[in-house]
Amino acid sequence: MGMIDISNKPIVRRTAKAAGKIRLSASTIEEIRAGTIRKGDPLAVAELSAISGAKQTAALIPFCHQIPLDTVSEEFEIINAREIMVTCIVKTRAGTGVEMEALVGVTMALNTIWDMVKYLEKDEQGQYPDTRMTDIRVLHKEKIE
Amino acid sequence: MGMIDISNKPIVRRTAKAAGKIRLSASTIEEIRAGTIRKGDPLAVAELSAISGAKQTAALIPFCHQIPLDTVSEEFEIINAREIMVTCIVKTRAGTGVEMEALVGVTMALNTIWDMVKYLEKDEQGQYPDTRMTDIRVLHKEKIE
Amino acid sequence: MGMIDISNKPIVRRTAKAAGKIRLSASTIEEIRAGTIRKGDPLAVAELSAISGAKQTAALIPFCHQIPLDTVSEEFEIINAREIMVTCIVKTRAGTGVEMEALVGVTMALNTIWDMVKYLEKDEQGQYPDTRMTDIRVLHKEKIE
Amino acid sequence: MGMIDISNKPIVRRTAKAAGKIRLSASTIEEIRAGTIRKGDPLAVAELSAISGAKQTAALIPFCHQIPLDTVSEEFEIINAREIMVTCIVKTRAGTGVEMEALVGVTMALNTIWDMVKYLEKDEQGQYPDTRMTDIRVLHKEKIE
Amino acid sequence: MGMIDISNKPIVRRTAKAAGKIRLSASTIEEIRAGTIRKGDPLAVAELSAISGAKQTAALIPFCHQIPLDTVSEEFEIINAREIMVTCIVKTRAGTGVEMEALVGVTMALNTIWDMVKYLEKDEQGQYPDTRMTDIRVLHKEKIE
Amino acid sequence: MGMIDISNKPIVRRTAKAAGKIRLSASTIEEIRAGTIRKGDPLAVAELSAISGAKQTAALIPFCHQIPLDTVSEEFEIINAREIMVTCIVKTRAGTGVEMEALVGVTMALNTIWDMVKYLEKDEQGQYPDTRMTDIRVLHKEKIE
Repeated sequence: MGMIDISNKPIVRRTAKAAGKIRLSASTIEEIRAGTIRKGDPLAVAELSAISGAKQTAALIPFCHQIPLDTVSEEFEIINAREIMVTCIVKTRAGTGVEMEALVGVTMALNTIWDMVKYLEKDEQGQYPDTRMTDIRVLHKEKIE
Repeated sequence: MGMIDISNKPIVRRTAKAAGKIRLSASTIEEIRAGTIRKGDPLAVAELSAISGAKQTAALIPFCHQIPLDTVSEEFEIINAREIMVTCIVKTRAGTGVEMEALVGVTMALNTIWDMVKYLEKDEQGQYPDTRMTDIRVLHKEKIE
Repeated sequence: MGMIDISNKPIVRRTAKAAGKIRLSASTIEEIRAGTIRKGDPLAVAELSAISGAKQTAALIPFCHQIPLDTVSEEFEIINAREIMVTCIVKTRAGTGVEMEALVGVTMALNTIWDMVKYLEKDEQGQYPDTRMTDIRVLHKEKIE
Repeated sequence: MGMIDISNKPIVRRTAKAAGKIRLSASTIEEIRAGTIRKGDPLAVAELSAISGAKQTAALIPFCHQIPLDTVSEEFEIINAREIMVTCIVKTRAGTGVEMEALVGVTMALNTIWDMVKYLEKDEQGQYPDTRMTDIRVLHKEKIE
Repeated sequence: MGMIDISNKPIVRRTAKAAGKIRLSASTIEEIRAGTIRKGDPLAVAELSAISGAKQTAALIPFCHQIPLDTVSEEFEIINAREIMVTCIVKTRAGTGVEMEALVGVTMALNTIWDMVKYLEKDEQGQYPDTRMTDIRVLHKEKIE
Repeated sequence: MGMIDISNKPIVRRTAKAAGKIRLSASTIEEIRAGTIRKGDPLAVAELSAISGAKQTAALIPFCHQIPLDTVSEEFEIINAREIMVTCIVKTRAGTGVEMEALVGVTMALNTIWDMVKYLEKDEQGQYPDTRMTDIRVLHKEKIE
């Protein structure tokens, strides 16, 4: 039945928080910490990609509604020698929730980190044996009516 | 140092194959098999989202080049009672590789599956305790010079 | 005088319904009924194209306003041996009407059906002697103040 | 099977020409001739919408390839007291044809003309009893190998 | 800290007015006045580019919010033998100001004028020794609470 | 005559270099140097906006062709106590030049810098008495046949 009809849903405050991880080689994580990645700071670039992606969710996911976001914020944490955790919080005043916007924010951030460090992650055959995006999930969503 | 200069790279045939999984509740998987999902067939809608996303990669990942894709193809497999595997193959004739396009294809497909079944995955508090996108990776890339 | 100033128009419920037809060869219609079109189900793909197009109306028609749509729904009916009718209903809460969004929905659906069956509609010279999109119109629009 | 694989198709010169009509009230046609339409010249605005739409075809029709267009040109003719004919020619050097680009050009031009004159076409109930887009077709396509 | 959180800002009427100039050769200005520019009227085309750009501001400037514009209007004035002044007024009902939308409108208009007359502005070496966009500024902004 | 027909132009290497300046208050320049701007580093964010804008030129300027860019690079220099100079170099292999892409890169970078520091540039009445984008020009273009 396609796109849900939200014409009878009230405009209320809504928040969603999603997260996900990317697993990289230890030496790549070291270079990120050291600030020596060739194309620039992967986490700064990923933040912009996440915000841009979240704002474009309705153009990317077929049945999503166009939702004007009050804010999109990203946090990045190197949680161990091999993994970076990305968290994305989205807020709106709208008739439907924003968990898809938060998930698009997280996945675009992770994709962008991959793009920034791919020259370090490729093996001699040009393959990515160990690079992974994992554990992408919605941590929390709520509405305040 | 930003966007890599590919002006001296020859235009050659390139292929990339990426994959990823989404973990859903067993009852949601049953409904997908039975064709009873309210908004329509999640895998058919996800396929279009993947193709659309892959074609827009240069607008989504800041330092990616605009690459005209010769094809984008998606495969979906229910690999067990709780998981769907998405595989995306991208081909081009271009000066740089298309693994990011394949990864964007996979992640947009997974996000769209989530959107299609989210009414079944939410618990009584409106949260998603068990839904996960995992193990997103590049299976293979090659160029034929 | 370009884009109309709607800053003094109240935000009210608005609906618009548009329709249009595509004329195909009888054998193509048979294949659509039989589900044997090579690229997939033309009507399912057309539905997504219609929704996506309707949401992007302000980017496609120069003086249209950005309107957050509460829903876009499409219906497809094979009305005779040669014609498919597409109907698109759009709802919003906004300061101006959504008939252009409904018309963009219809025309994008018709264009997509054409794309899906074009290998069947071309004659031996690669031309389309009989394929037509016709009778595209606004069936109804209303606002509830 | 989704998006056709064109990786083995040679890059050749291709042209497509499409056309379509919009039927308006005689008084609207008079105002277009007289240059008194409130928002500006509908045909000049429609030309830009057609070019912009044609360039975005791959983002609008799910299985279309991204094709760099060498030119898009539009012609407008008031063919009788009630009808305007729009013709769109698209040229490229690519691995697949551009008839969909030409059709998107025509349909976006027609939609934009509608938008420009809708204040004249609406009746007292705000409906459009007589406005129609009709006879949208591909006049010719060819490739020069 | 990225994108400002406007979730506690009330939705109020807001207006912004920006302006800027382009300096061209005297003969180009003469041709614009005479209506003999090859690609069409630069000011009419620039107006559409300005409106389209202003509506897409949130996709162009990373931390800008998606703001539904109530109107975008452009004025063009040939202020002397060498310069055209572009003024852009944007109105909205939103939680944050629209001066960036007005500035994007002005800069896109100026870029489009450049594009329309570039064949006249280039010297024999294909360079643009004298063409300039200058003095782009916000003339006024206000909110009415 | 609208969009130029480039179907007979050979695909050759092309480069364009554009530049422009933004004038800010001396204290804002000091904060940029000190790295204390609230939303982040304006120059890093402006770089991404420039690249993204340059890649979208054909969607922003009506008669521009879709050109696959081999690279876009930006340089930022604080040239005195009140001004930042932005330089953008674009390279391609295409049938037409890329000076418009370079100019869009520069103007989007300048707009983004403005957005990043606007809280510092506004006076007590919320106006921008001294902020200016100036002297935007094409420094050089060439093709290598």
